Amino acid sequence: MPTADQLLDNGQGVIDPDVFFEMNTPPTNLPEFEAKLEAFVDYHQKNKTRLVFITSGGTTVPLENQTVRFIDNFSNGHRGACSAEYFLEAGYAVVFMHRQFSLQPFHRHYTHNASTGFLDYLVQKDEDTIAVNPQYTEKMKVVLSKYHNATKNNRLLLLDFVTLSDYLFKLKSGTRILARLQEKAMYYLAAAVSDFFVPSQKMHEHKIQSSGGALTLTLDQVPKFLTPLVSVWASKGLIVSFKLETDANLLVPKARQALTRYGHQVVVANMLNTRKQTVTVITKSSQEVVSLTPDDLANHVEIEDRLIPQLVHIHDGWISSDATKACQQ
Amino acid sequence: MPTADQLLDNGQGVIDPDVFFEMNTPPTNLPEFEAKLEAFVDYHQKNKTRLVFITSGGTTVPLENQTVRFIDNFSNGHRGACSAEYFLEAGYAVVFMHRQFSLQPFHRHYTHNASTGFLDYLVQKDEDTIAVNPQYTEKMKVVLSKYHNATKNNRLLLLDFVTLSDYLFKLKSGTRILARLQEKAMYYLAAAVSDFFVPSQKMHEHKIQSSGGALTLTLDQVPKFLTPLVSVWASKGLIVSFKLETDANLLVPKARQALTRYGHQVVVANMLNTRKQTVTVITKSSQEVVSLTPDDLANHVEIEDRLIPQLVHIHDGWISSDATKACQQ
Repeated sequence: MPTADQLLDNGQGVIDPDVFFEMNTPPTNLPEFEAKLEAFVDYHQKNKTRLVFITSGGTTVPLENQTVRFIDNFSNGHRGACSAEYFLEAGYAVVFMHRQFSLQPFHRHYTHNASTGFLDYLVQKDEDTIAVNPQYTEKMKVVLSKYHNATKNNRLLLLDFVTLSDYLFKLKSGTRILARLQEKAMYYLAAAVSDFFVPSQKMHEHKIQSSGGALTLTLDQVPKFLTPLVSVWASKGLIVSFKLETDANLLVPKARQALTRYGHQVVVANMLNTRKQTVTVITKSSQEVVSLTPDDLANHVEIEDRLIPQLVHIHDGWISSDATKACQQ
Repeated sequence: MPTADQLLDNGQGVIDPDVFFEMNTPPTNLPEFEAKLEAFVDYHQKNKTRLVFITSGGTTVPLENQTVRFIDNFSNGHRGACSAEYFLEAGYAVVFMHRQFSLQPFHRHYTHNASTGFLDYLVQKDEDTIAVNPQYTEKMKVVLSKYHNATKNNRLLLLDFVTLSDYLFKLKSGTRILARLQEKAMYYLAAAVSDFFVPSQKMHEHKIQSSGGALTLTLDQVPKFLTPLVSVWASKGLIVSFKLETDANLLVPKARQALTRYGHQVVVANMLNTRKQTVTVITKSSQEVVSLTPDDLANHVEIEDRLIPQLVHIHDGWISSDATKACQQ
């Protein structure tokens, strides 16, 4: 097998996606991941349901083989978890591939809440019954009913990942399994994926000791996985990627650059500080700012309530243009 | 103000704890943190209750000022959250200073569970009642009752942190507030605190861009905060620190080295892979391995059920030796 250094010879210091997969070991639960996904896709292919593959939450990059320390990406998974609910509302079946313990659709309304823990929602009603505190019941009834509706109809599949490597193996495997749905599948890549990683050959075996003063870490750039995803793994699907920046001047140029480089269909661009109020939906031929009004904010409207219908509309067009192409052939 | 480079002149490349506080900005919620803690300590000082200050979960080290990426330490907060319950059981009041969204006492039995989300515990019982699924009721009754007992009697104060800097400011402030309880306070430092950090002057302002190939990060060593904690901030309290290693050969020597260097009372040494079954309690004059038997494991006994009584016993000795000293004066 070639070494990492031999493979960094493409002039930009970035290895090929294929080389990444050769150099890393697949996650041990990959066969289970694939089996669950195959069954879910089979089911919805028969029912001709549209399907969205959502990635959500941040990936970790271990700094040691026996991991005590890792680099993480800021993301609690809010965008993905929230979007999943609106895709279900729009009639999609949802594969929710998320960072372990990040926010999940429906559950999200009651978790990751600094002032209210699990048991704070509950009261001992009588000897045999623990009930939800009545003050929460009205809203929770609605959420619970939507959640049960999604699970009862097998419309929501939860799958998880932790590390970057875990994520990439599952992304490749997952998109290839969904590829058979062709243009009916949407890929909504909301996960915050690390741009840099420590190749396992360069990793410390044990916990890095702190006695030596300063620590210097050299990280390699992660290969651009959108290239094979768009051109090979899921070439017929509608692919939506995200661009998160903190510098407003870079936002749209970097989003357009991504569309040009990878040749996919949609970039949703958002700023770290305003991502819950405004996003820009960018395609090759259009650029639309989706924002919440002060009234929306006062009424607790979520930006995904506006964003998802717009993407569904783009997906409509994608499917019908594909149908037109098929008729013309 | 001196620059970071000027202050790295102690020959080991490590700044003084005081310098760290001068160079960094206190967390904005520090006054609120202090007010809550003052009130809690006042209350228990009047009631002559013993108090334990538990730190739990990992600290983050931001790599950018507007943080997208950070270095994190592996820890879901299990040790701290679990220990808090056994300290309450032993009659202590507990300050639980934890990483935001890490495991919390009592709630921990129902969160961070990959297969069972919040709503999975609940059923719609009738039009107006959402109840806990009866299969969970029996165990949950016990947990809920202990939790209500702790909160009703004002025995559990939850405080949180996220970054290393946040943690260190609150550690200093918190231990100084508790110091008035003198030998009645125990400090149980179970948080996984980063050994390295990026001084804010060296930090990238915006999200680090990935177009430049490899990324090199230089991290400085975090000052040894146990030194002022033991000698100044909480000099009369019983201080228990933790040592987590992945290399068994380093475990006991590094624990002993810590006792010698800082002059505190107890190190609990544990290996990453066996930390839930075996710990070694090390004092200047003793070294005791605390392990669960196969029977214990089969009965879901937690190692903290054995560890905490042992520490309480050491605390008994600490308090009475202090009383003896006082009588002799």
